[in-house]
Amino acid sequence: MKLSDVDTPAVLIDVDRVEANLQRFQRYANGHRLAVRPHIKTHKLPRFAKRQIELGAVGITCQKLGEAEVMADAGITDIFLPYNIVGHAKLDRLVALNARIKIAVTADSDVAIHGLAEAFKNSTKPLVVLIECDTGMGRCGVQTPDEALALAKLVDGSDGLSFAGFMTFPKTGSIAQTEAFLSLAKKMARDAGLDPRIISNGGSPDMWRAHEVTSATEHRPGTYIYLDRFQVSKGVGTWDDCALTVLATVVSRPTENRAVIDAGSKALTSDTLGLEGFGRITDYPDAVITSLSEEHGVIDLGACASKPKVGDRLRVIPNHCCVVSNLFDEVILISGDEIIESARVAARGRVD
Amino acid sequence: MKLSDVDTPAVLIDVDRVEANLQRFQRYANGHRLAVRPHIKTHKLPRFAKRQIELGAVGITCQKLGEAEVMADAGITDIFLPYNIVGHAKLDRLVALNARIKIAVTADSDVAIHGLAEAFKNSTKPLVVLIECDTGMGRCGVQTPDEALALAKLVDGSDGLSFAGFMTFPKTGSIAQTEAFLSLAKKMARDAGLDPRIISNGGSPDMWRAHEVTSATEHRPGTYIYLDRFQVSKGVGTWDDCALTVLATVVSRPTENRAVIDAGSKALTSDTLGLEGFGRITDYPDAVITSLSEEHGVIDLGACASKPKVGDRLRVIPNHCCVVSNLFDEVILISGDEIIESARVAARGRVD
Repeated sequence: MKLSDVDTPAVLIDVDRVEANLQRFQRYANGHRLAVRPHIKTHKLPRFAKRQIELGAVGITCQKLGEAEVMADAGITDIFLPYNIVGHAKLDRLVALNARIKIAVTADSDVAIHGLAEAFKNSTKPLVVLIECDTGMGRCGVQTPDEALALAKLVDGSDGLSFAGFMTFPKTGSIAQTEAFLSLAKKMARDAGLDPRIISNGGSPDMWRAHEVTSATEHRPGTYIYLDRFQVSKGVGTWDDCALTVLATVVSRPTENRAVIDAGSKALTSDTLGLEGFGRITDYPDAVITSLSEEHGVIDLGACASKPKVGDRLRVIPNHCCVVSNLFDEVILISGDEIIESARVAARGRVD
Repeated sequence: MKLSDVDTPAVLIDVDRVEANLQRFQRYANGHRLAVRPHIKTHKLPRFAKRQIELGAVGITCQKLGEAEVMADAGITDIFLPYNIVGHAKLDRLVALNARIKIAVTADSDVAIHGLAEAFKNSTKPLVVLIECDTGMGRCGVQTPDEALALAKLVDGSDGLSFAGFMTFPKTGSIAQTEAFLSLAKKMARDAGLDPRIISNGGSPDMWRAHEVTSATEHRPGTYIYLDRFQVSKGVGTWDDCALTVLATVVSRPTENRAVIDAGSKALTSDTLGLEGFGRITDYPDAVITSLSEEHGVIDLGACASKPKVGDRLRVIPNHCCVVSNLFDEVILISGDEIIESARVAARGRVD
């Protein structure tokens, strides 16, 4: 099959760019003696998880138990799940997963830790737990190093659990704040006789400054594999590094300056991440995707010298590639303009 | 299985509310002699499409060929696809579908019509085509009744195509404008000797005023089956009419006024539709879902008298239910607090 025969909308993944992106960050991390533990939420493909490990990653990160189960089934043996696992159904699945592979989770409350301890109290293999720290993101995580230490001690004192360190998903741009929190938590844990051997930092936007968080032992980049419009806006890479594009067809040209493509929020998602518009059209960089409904993307061509016509096919770099991966049952792997094969997005839709 | 055993996040569909919502609009439309042609993008479930027809709908509306194929496979025999079908791959599928069931499409350009005519020129069964009119929405559609007439004539003069009328997806609140456009296009077509027998109007926000568009012969409501936070904000129904909720678990309570649930943009979507926040929590109506990342929903409990704790389960009425249906492989049908069964969302992810 040729690219011109692919029906739209479709997700194209340029494997050469994937490989370059993976190698580039792995090299950087190696240079700084920082472990890489990629977040697979971006690609949800076992083949890329395996490639990340081949290139030197110490394991992978998943956000959902269901994603971890898919990756374990595919042969991945070291997974970090930086999430509070709450409720009997999930705890039972976590016990089963921990028996099969090396797994670690996070917790940020005594309630969550008590749940883990109860589930693992009779386990022959303890569950590895890191304490999640809110270093500025305003999402999950304890608010102070004092709280972090208290929960670390709670984990350490629980049969069936093994304390391993601290984790954060930082606010973009908050390097100093992140380092201050983590280094103090680490010192306090050591002073208390604990072994915070893993300090896990994350995120792609600040990944080229990951080494500035000197207390961190590992970094969890996700989007770095594909990059997207948001990451380029943050200077993480260039347009030519973006590996994921949505292929779409112009289905309507109702006015001089309006085009409508067959990629709407079901293909590009409504994520703006603070940007204006919903993606960058590679051949028409001055075009603005002004609004999306589910199956329509409305484009303002007012600033474009040349304009596409009905039937033309466009490639769009989305604002946020991770959420796009979750909308397609399969993606098409390409090298330049050559199709290699299509790949089922194995961990798509793993909601729980 | 009990509701308390359902793992989260999960989509719950209250079938009693579904039935009441469907009957209510069908009664209204019957009273106004307006045909109902529900848009199945909201539910993507053959069982509900069949029920809509049992209650009096003349057929269904799908937005994608893939959705129509799923519904045809399930036994639905009358489908309207209000979309420009462009490109060989889709045209071939449309020819095959037209041979199996009664199908109609829209077009809004000579390019699209030429494509249809070429694909159907040797068909023994002509393809029914309506002209899409932009009556204010600013998406697809011809801009004037004059253009509508010109394309109607082009369809009428094309072997293999059969002109049937005009279609619009109106801008919310633009009743008079919509009626003015459609009634003029209808008159001009009749005066030209054409038979615009179908005038198809759409949308749920203004559905209780559908009869005011007197030229319309049919209405295509979609969201009316479930309703959601946006529809309630528009007065289409009440919170007690909302049939779709996302069941989520509180996984973190990092601060006095912050809770985090395990439903993020992968469950609720980033659609705001102009609303503040990302959904209404039924038991905590004063809570505000302030931000979503893929697997986290961050909630501000500042205005709440009582506050949920880690492990509590909440039900969220999303801003936009249609996009939620597209994110889950299955939904759980309930009656009150009793689970009936889970249903596979057969037309989910039909991107093309």
